[in-house]
Amino acid sequence: MSDHLLIKRMAIMGVGLIGGSLALALKEAGAVGEVIGCGRGKPNLEKAVELGIIDRYTRDPREAVADADLIFLATPVKTLGAVVEQCLPAIKAGAIITDGGSVKAEVVRHIEPLLPDVIHFVPGHPIAGTEQSGAEAAFAGLYRGKRCILTPTAKTDPQALALIEQMWQLAGSIVVKMPMDKHDRILAAISHLPHMVAYSLVNAVGSYDHYEENILEYSAGGFRDFTRIASSDPTMWRDIAETNREALLEMMEQFEVFFAELKADVAAGDGDKLFEFFLRSKQMRDAIL
Amino acid sequence: MSDHLLIKRMAIMGVGLIGGSLALALKEAGAVGEVIGCGRGKPNLEKAVELGIIDRYTRDPREAVADADLIFLATPVKTLGAVVEQCLPAIKAGAIITDGGSVKAEVVRHIEPLLPDVIHFVPGHPIAGTEQSGAEAAFAGLYRGKRCILTPTAKTDPQALALIEQMWQLAGSIVVKMPMDKHDRILAAISHLPHMVAYSLVNAVGSYDHYEENILEYSAGGFRDFTRIASSDPTMWRDIAETNREALLEMMEQFEVFFAELKADVAAGDGDKLFEFFLRSKQMRDAIL
Repeated sequence: MSDHLLIKRMAIMGVGLIGGSLALALKEAGAVGEVIGCGRGKPNLEKAVELGIIDRYTRDPREAVADADLIFLATPVKTLGAVVEQCLPAIKAGAIITDGGSVKAEVVRHIEPLLPDVIHFVPGHPIAGTEQSGAEAAFAGLYRGKRCILTPTAKTDPQALALIEQMWQLAGSIVVKMPMDKHDRILAAISHLPHMVAYSLVNAVGSYDHYEENILEYSAGGFRDFTRIASSDPTMWRDIAETNREALLEMMEQFEVFFAELKADVAAGDGDKLFEFFLRSKQMRDAIL
Repeated sequence: MSDHLLIKRMAIMGVGLIGGSLALALKEAGAVGEVIGCGRGKPNLEKAVELGIIDRYTRDPREAVADADLIFLATPVKTLGAVVEQCLPAIKAGAIITDGGSVKAEVVRHIEPLLPDVIHFVPGHPIAGTEQSGAEAAFAGLYRGKRCILTPTAKTDPQALALIEQMWQLAGSIVVKMPMDKHDRILAAISHLPHMVAYSLVNAVGSYDHYEENILEYSAGGFRDFTRIASSDPTMWRDIAETNREALLEMMEQFEVFFAELKADVAAGDGDKLFEFFLRSKQMRDAIL
């Protein structure tokens, strides 16, 4: 094992799509020595070893982090604080903890007060994912070309931050740094709100009881793509809705205002306003392509 | 030219994705003799000849329908009645008119009263499409495996209906017959409502003015797929919102009820209800895959 590795020993807490893909990307980049996986499901951990994602595994969090230089928290967002609490006594001085949670402020509020000065925490969120989960879904290219947002605080160690930034760059990410509250509001807008909308849409359409058959069966490509995200993991989304409550409510209210405006235009049969509403949306949307 | 062709001479009014793809599918199936294209844009019509979609073209609707056995209306839904009015004097006795409009009741109300008994109208709607448009986007396989809804009325000639059913089957479609009001409500649910939701979502997120940068740039795969339909043609959607007003308003209200329920659960931080809401949606959505 070379002395020039960015990370000598790394513990992945939660070897699913997010954790597994980071391990694979860092191995491909030659940036990591040994990778220890930790999780609850033994078949998933065995599969991860078989696929070369991790070198070995343990189901004991303290055993996993012992002597780890870097600890990547990739369990569901509501559990991140508890995972740190559980393994903290075994974490060595100088170790860096980072995470992949979709919500940042609540995670930081939970984890930062737990840590002594010699253990560093760099809050992060790689914006990447598929609807797949588990180690089998992991692949080295998941983060390539995708943004990874880091949300350092006043307490964040600059050297630890620099290392985590370099780690994500080696995994192929474009690293962006911003305050955690800004992160949570942006994610509420571009990710959490769309999920709430998709879930509501599928419930509204699926509950439409005018006809005996399931009208969802008539849906063509557009609707299926549109509602793909409504088949995401309910536990994960419950946790996000609970941990990013305020920013999400703000965006849900923003959405309601626009939807009500459109409904009024439809009710009034106002063709000019309808056209203008649709065109504005098309232009905004096309601008990001 | 064989006497056994299903359609000897066919006029396509509007040679875009919908009209062009039907022409290509019927040619591939050996079901049509000559195809005459009619439209306003000369470059598009010339391209359609070059691509073998149509055999010849004219920009005069009456010339296009003269001697046609079948007339396929594939212009925007609000123009369909006007196209029939315009070319009616040149349509021969025994000819069949059919259409591909996304809304049926208003189209039927406009066209049926115009026609003498010897000219037949079979209202239809192939549920297929992409975000592309124009003759260049047309391809023979567009309708393969997709549903085509026909909405015969008390006035619809059974033989004409049977021929149109056969035509869509030859193009690869699964033909479903239902009353026009049912069609309009189902489409409001599975297509028109999702578009209204997507347009509102992109407007709401794109107008979020807390930050200097365009936050849409942070969106990952999910949001882009989700809002793909928000880049559909504003004119087409203005027309649909105007012509299917009542069914669409009913579905928009249905959606608002579910969205408000979810917002209340988020505000209350009610994890059990959130989980149940997301799970219900996931189950409905997964059931159609």
